[in-house]
Amino acid sequence: MADPRLIDSLKQALSRLPGVGPRSAQRMAFHLLERDREGGRMIVEALSRALESIGHCRRCNNFSERDLCPICASAKRDPELLCVVEAPVDVDALEKTSAYDGMYFVLMGHVSPLDGVGPDQLGVDRLLGLLDSGDVREVILATNLTVEGEATAHLLAELIRERGIRVTRIAQGMPAGGELEYTDHNTLAHAIKGRAPV
Amino acid sequence: MADPRLIDSLKQALSRLPGVGPRSAQRMAFHLLERDREGGRMIVEALSRALESIGHCRRCNNFSERDLCPICASAKRDPELLCVVEAPVDVDALEKTSAYDGMYFVLMGHVSPLDGVGPDQLGVDRLLGLLDSGDVREVILATNLTVEGEATAHLLAELIRERGIRVTRIAQGMPAGGELEYTDHNTLAHAIKGRAPV
Repeated sequence: MADPRLIDSLKQALSRLPGVGPRSAQRMAFHLLERDREGGRMIVEALSRALESIGHCRRCNNFSERDLCPICASAKRDPELLCVVEAPVDVDALEKTSAYDGMYFVLMGHVSPLDGVGPDQLGVDRLLGLLDSGDVREVILATNLTVEGEATAHLLAELIRERGIRVTRIAQGMPAGGELEYTDHNTLAHAIKGRAPV
Repeated sequence: MADPRLIDSLKQALSRLPGVGPRSAQRMAFHLLERDREGGRMIVEALSRALESIGHCRRCNNFSERDLCPICASAKRDPELLCVVEAPVDVDALEKTSAYDGMYFVLMGHVSPLDGVGPDQLGVDRLLGLLDSGDVREVILATNLTVEGEATAHLLAELIRERGIRVTRIAQGMPAGGELEYTDHNTLAHAIKGRAPV
């Protein structure tokens, strides 16, 4: 047997990953040591480099290697539009559409009282500071359409409206390719209420 | 945004973990970078140390930091008894019972034709070499009672019997605290067939 402390600390470290309990951690440790040492070395390498190099953009709060991320530093983006999202993946998703040319603010989460995540943990004061200091004319709330995302949007809408800045929410309705027969009531109701002239 | 290559290589590296697909890898990368950098550093540290220090015992094939693991190096163990198990965790489990004082051989898996794991991948030749060179009088097959474990035991039993060495299989029957009403047919049948005088 190897020194159990070495393997135990590996298991403990791996169970820090979200969704990984003691049994999965054990299976992962065994897999890396027995079947994929190359994969283990890739994890060590990629994780150390990411931890070392990746911080936050001081303006939009997204992950960034530099003080100011490429989007915030770009002269081609509209500084009067600010889109608030929950996570870096949401910025990626919106950028892929090429439908948006404004700036972003990344909350890095949503309000979740059960997990102790309130406005303070989400850097809402930084967002408000940005609004107070800046040229923003419209804030687009693009948090997810989940219960938590809606609650976050609701909370932000009030705080932003107080500042006399226009607040909008991304549209709700039928997804592309959606069929009415298989669409949930809630979505259908939003699609009817939000109907637009053609 | 951070350089997408840094985050992408982290995601790719994390998806080398068993049971982790692209979406989990993304969630893990986000979690480590945003919520648990300390955990990230623990993984880097524990994994590098384990990869660097842990190899295999040249006798029993278990994980070991030394050429010969503490069990194989011990003078207190019975060298005439050899227990064959699938994985290092099985050695740990048996050691905890204090019911066994022989040696071990760790296959690091079981035969699994679908995954391309046959006798060669399991180091069966090393096991047979050990038997040919040694003092072993009895081999206890302690692979799992699963389909793959049973197939592995069956295959090994033939190879070992050819060498005129006694081969046994761990007992099958009711688990401690088991109730007949809730025990599956297969287990009950084994418990009846394997009954012993009291």
